[in-house]
Amino acid sequence: MDLNAYSTHIDLALDARDLAQAANQGQAIPGIETDTKRENGIRVTKINVLNEEGSKALGKLPGHYITIEVPALRQKDTQLQDRVATKLAQEFGQFLLEIGISKEAKVLIIGLGNSSVTPDALGPLVVDNVMVTRHYFELMPDDVGPGYRAVSAVAPGVLGTTGIESSDIVQGIVEKSQPDFIIAIDALASRSLERVNTTIQIADTGIHPGSGIGNKRKGLTKEVLGIPVVAIGVPTVVYASTIVNNAFDMMHKHFSEQTSNTGQILGLLDGMKEEERLLLVKEVLNPVGHDLLVTPKEIDQFIEDIANIIASGLNAALHDAVSVDNVAAYTH
Amino acid sequence: MDLNAYSTHIDLALDARDLAQAANQGQAIPGIETDTKRENGIRVTKINVLNEEGSKALGKLPGHYITIEVPALRQKDTQLQDRVATKLAQEFGQFLLEIGISKEAKVLIIGLGNSSVTPDALGPLVVDNVMVTRHYFELMPDDVGPGYRAVSAVAPGVLGTTGIESSDIVQGIVEKSQPDFIIAIDALASRSLERVNTTIQIADTGIHPGSGIGNKRKGLTKEVLGIPVVAIGVPTVVYASTIVNNAFDMMHKHFSEQTSNTGQILGLLDGMKEEERLLLVKEVLNPVGHDLLVTPKEIDQFIEDIANIIASGLNAALHDAVSVDNVAAYTH
Amino acid sequence: MDLNAYSTHIDLALDARDLAQAANQGQAIPGIETDTKRENGIRVTKINVLNEEGSKALGKLPGHYITIEVPALRQKDTQLQDRVATKLAQEFGQFLLEIGISKEAKVLIIGLGNSSVTPDALGPLVVDNVMVTRHYFELMPDDVGPGYRAVSAVAPGVLGTTGIESSDIVQGIVEKSQPDFIIAIDALASRSLERVNTTIQIADTGIHPGSGIGNKRKGLTKEVLGIPVVAIGVPTVVYASTIVNNAFDMMHKHFSEQTSNTGQILGLLDGMKEEERLLLVKEVLNPVGHDLLVTPKEIDQFIEDIANIIASGLNAALHDAVSVDNVAAYTH
Amino acid sequence: MDLNAYSTHIDLALDARDLAQAANQGQAIPGIETDTKRENGIRVTKINVLNEEGSKALGKLPGHYITIEVPALRQKDTQLQDRVATKLAQEFGQFLLEIGISKEAKVLIIGLGNSSVTPDALGPLVVDNVMVTRHYFELMPDDVGPGYRAVSAVAPGVLGTTGIESSDIVQGIVEKSQPDFIIAIDALASRSLERVNTTIQIADTGIHPGSGIGNKRKGLTKEVLGIPVVAIGVPTVVYASTIVNNAFDMMHKHFSEQTSNTGQILGLLDGMKEEERLLLVKEVLNPVGHDLLVTPKEIDQFIEDIANIIASGLNAALHDAVSVDNVAAYTH
Repeated sequence: MDLNAYSTHIDLALDARDLAQAANQGQAIPGIETDTKRENGIRVTKINVLNEEGSKALGKLPGHYITIEVPALRQKDTQLQDRVATKLAQEFGQFLLEIGISKEAKVLIIGLGNSSVTPDALGPLVVDNVMVTRHYFELMPDDVGPGYRAVSAVAPGVLGTTGIESSDIVQGIVEKSQPDFIIAIDALASRSLERVNTTIQIADTGIHPGSGIGNKRKGLTKEVLGIPVVAIGVPTVVYASTIVNNAFDMMHKHFSEQTSNTGQILGLLDGMKEEERLLLVKEVLNPVGHDLLVTPKEIDQFIEDIANIIASGLNAALHDAVSVDNVAAYTH
Repeated sequence: MDLNAYSTHIDLALDARDLAQAANQGQAIPGIETDTKRENGIRVTKINVLNEEGSKALGKLPGHYITIEVPALRQKDTQLQDRVATKLAQEFGQFLLEIGISKEAKVLIIGLGNSSVTPDALGPLVVDNVMVTRHYFELMPDDVGPGYRAVSAVAPGVLGTTGIESSDIVQGIVEKSQPDFIIAIDALASRSLERVNTTIQIADTGIHPGSGIGNKRKGLTKEVLGIPVVAIGVPTVVYASTIVNNAFDMMHKHFSEQTSNTGQILGLLDGMKEEERLLLVKEVLNPVGHDLLVTPKEIDQFIEDIANIIASGLNAALHDAVSVDNVAAYTH
Repeated sequence: MDLNAYSTHIDLALDARDLAQAANQGQAIPGIETDTKRENGIRVTKINVLNEEGSKALGKLPGHYITIEVPALRQKDTQLQDRVATKLAQEFGQFLLEIGISKEAKVLIIGLGNSSVTPDALGPLVVDNVMVTRHYFELMPDDVGPGYRAVSAVAPGVLGTTGIESSDIVQGIVEKSQPDFIIAIDALASRSLERVNTTIQIADTGIHPGSGIGNKRKGLTKEVLGIPVVAIGVPTVVYASTIVNNAFDMMHKHFSEQTSNTGQILGLLDGMKEEERLLLVKEVLNPVGHDLLVTPKEIDQFIEDIANIIASGLNAALHDAVSVDNVAAYTH
Repeated sequence: MDLNAYSTHIDLALDARDLAQAANQGQAIPGIETDTKRENGIRVTKINVLNEEGSKALGKLPGHYITIEVPALRQKDTQLQDRVATKLAQEFGQFLLEIGISKEAKVLIIGLGNSSVTPDALGPLVVDNVMVTRHYFELMPDDVGPGYRAVSAVAPGVLGTTGIESSDIVQGIVEKSQPDFIIAIDALASRSLERVNTTIQIADTGIHPGSGIGNKRKGLTKEVLGIPVVAIGVPTVVYASTIVNNAFDMMHKHFSEQTSNTGQILGLLDGMKEEERLLLVKEVLNPVGHDLLVTPKEIDQFIEDIANIIASGLNAALHDAVSVDNVAAYTH
């Protein structure tokens, strides 16, 4: 989990695209391709950042991004969860082919985060639940059936509990175990409470840690590791200041719809830009201990559900022998 | 955990007192006695609601309330935790004597809440960690040393997982096991993010559930159970709307200190009463899924720490043979 | 878990029948009806103890007993687990009708045992995983669809952690919640290591605790509670002395098949009766701390698997609306 | 956990010494130095295997071995646990100096084993509870007080859940993080039920996996990793066959004390050597599923207690600033 209190970094390409588009008066942004499909309560948006121009406009690296949004995902609907796992499997399998990763490519799955902190335990939980096969390929290659690839999985812990940068640990493991590519799963800080535990992002740009005070963490990227890194991220926490800042917008909109006097709606807040206003909110809340990172009360259940969805989706996407119709059977 | 989205109910007598006092221009409130002491980062406030007049002013039942506030409690300071446990033991022991409960009185400790939902697991966790002695008194009374009393402890679960009102379960157990009084531990919804996991309230008024839609739960009170019920409550969650509403006050205060034009600070919000404003915020946030109950990211650790403090404090308060100096040794 | 070190009590009717039959030279035992079916790796044995004569011969109360044996159950075969859940659902549903319990009868499921001790946590785990419906019948009876009955579920804890006999807790809850019958789930001590986590017994004779030293526990029976009590038991632990005693038999058999000199096989052990020999083994192992109750290394996984099987089976057996074909979908 | 069913490998040097000494008619063994001290319920035995002769006699590599035996450790006596942690701290600190590891030497603590299998979770649990300091030395070296050394800690998982040999993972981490030595914590299979969770062995010979079928695991040794490896091992499981084999000895001894006819005590077993007899027991029990690895019923509590003892002991031994008198305060 990469959390920088004063960062203006936006984890989700979708949020960055929405902001950029709003700033651009709703016009399409040069250097950006997007495509959105809705089906059965699931919205899938593909965003390709084609070049430097697009990258600059969004503040995101050039690359491929897929966002899967499922607003109802927190409602304990097991059939919806199965549909999301199936959708994830399809999209992820397709995504790997599109970025040039073959069906035989050996993968190391990295579950980032701290298994003792529930909203940060997503990565380790996925690692606990994915099918691991690499040792069969190593120890008894002749016994492995067709339709499987070599999968290994490690949760490297966090700096505070291991004393070692997780990127250093991953680099060491990559050198010894020689995978062809990496899938890194991480919990994210959200731009909005409604995204928490309802959105999954896939990207081929790796993990880029922020650069907050005292934070010298290296990333997990192709530059560092020498092999492609596909990141899967899920927003699981949100700053109190973000909740407040979003509420200002909603309150403003609410009042606007009821009054014609738009000059006085939220007084001094009305004239501020969003980023400026967010920094002000942080400035006000932080010193009095009000700018905590928070997570929904039911986080234990939510995290377990999403970890199962991701593990099931990966199992089906990574092995042809595992059908997308019965992904659930292969996870714990 | 008793959570009513639109309730104007205030769980902490201290918050009710502060609101009433503010409404009363800072004047003392008739029918209310209060006393506050600070020591070593711990603030203890005693509030006695003496009569109907005081009860009406605060919206709290007549009775005795103690609030222990420790703003630094979330900072993983084990020495501070030990001091809080010792303070709780002293205050709680004194409190029992003052409300007329003798040192021999047999107690049943009830841990309310859902052990599978971390911020609601406080009660069950305390039950797991208190010293239980009743069976020694029953099975081998001659072997029990002096300085102990009969303590039993049960976590009755929640309606959603047992199918039975927890008050019915408690009533059944009380009839069979015949304790002299009850200590009921419960997680509360907070009026402020800073109170979450930093405040402990003791009260002799029992547990009074709200009356939200579909919520027919009975309370745990002397009227229902026939024996005194001492409640220990800790705020562990907060509504997003509460965070937002508090932020409006902080923003207003911030701007007020920087401008002389007090008429236009937050526009339309300026003229609203707090309760009215809170209802409006809920009205705006709720339909779009933004009024969740949230809890700090580090809730696993916080809940474990506070459960240990309460269990240690109770062990020392309930048994003379357990010294307040070494309470920690008796818990897990 | 009812564990009496020197008890000659036999928890499983099937073991009692086998011993009695062996003592009877393989002849059928008067007052006992038995019926065995095998299918797909699952063996189901029904034993009816018809009268006092049968009861005396087996040392089991008159009543109906079903034993489901699945030797391969520890092999992590999820398809086998599903088959066992389905078989349990069928047998249990049939069993209830045969002992005169209607499809509308309201049930309270009691999960006996200590949730903090893995091999004793079976009951609490089942309670965590069964569908609970009683509160819907109480709070919104018109909204409950057809094909469901009122189910409640409680894990009353153990004497050592609550200070109260679990039978007293259950009695209190029964009086307040008024179920028509009880299903009590308990972990048992096994007569053999191979039975551990591979065998499920159903019986309509309730839970009868042993009478070891200091053990004054009352049972959960129709006599005590006034309503029928169906017990579901699974052996999850075994005494080291039991392992040793069984090994003597296996060693004796092994040598017998290899030698004609049957007089000298295991020396002084050869002339002893089994019960006598077991008591001797206990006498030798116990003082030196060698007669512990043990459980397989993989107990965490085994207990979770069996708890899921039982919860799935109960959900399908108790509600017509839950199909035996998809029982797994209704559990966690 | 290194478990080879038919291995004649003995994990504890103390057991190997006892066997060798018995075979040598109680005479001292050339090439072996031993020293034993008892105090307060704790027995500490130091065994130095000086040369090839000693190594051959014991079947253990030349090196230094310390065994701490505490028969009462399973009795939940928290004061005894504190004494054991203090003793471990003293012995371990002394041990490091004696084998030439300085007080500034940077250490990587490796918790071997599977965190999801309780008796195999010792290593990961210790890693969760040790003080980790390396990142302070890396990120803010000027702020680190005197009396601390750089400590990092990783639980590399097991082959079955990661797909990668744990020795490969460790090797990769060593290369990236450059510690000066390694402490590797592992759960062991015991030669006797009474040793389970009561004995701690320290050795400077590293971790040497067995060579069972399909088991190609590399070790964690100075040869492989290039730096010293100190192993801490605790027996947590035992084969059923081991329990049975030990019981034969105890039964034989029991009968011997009661009879003068020593020729016929256990018949055909009397003439067999212990190793031969153990193989026979395995041969008889294994095919019928009776030779499981088992662990005491209370393993959850035992493992937590021993993990805390080891973590507390290591914290005090590794940092001069952490006093042996208050080791417990530094662990969770």
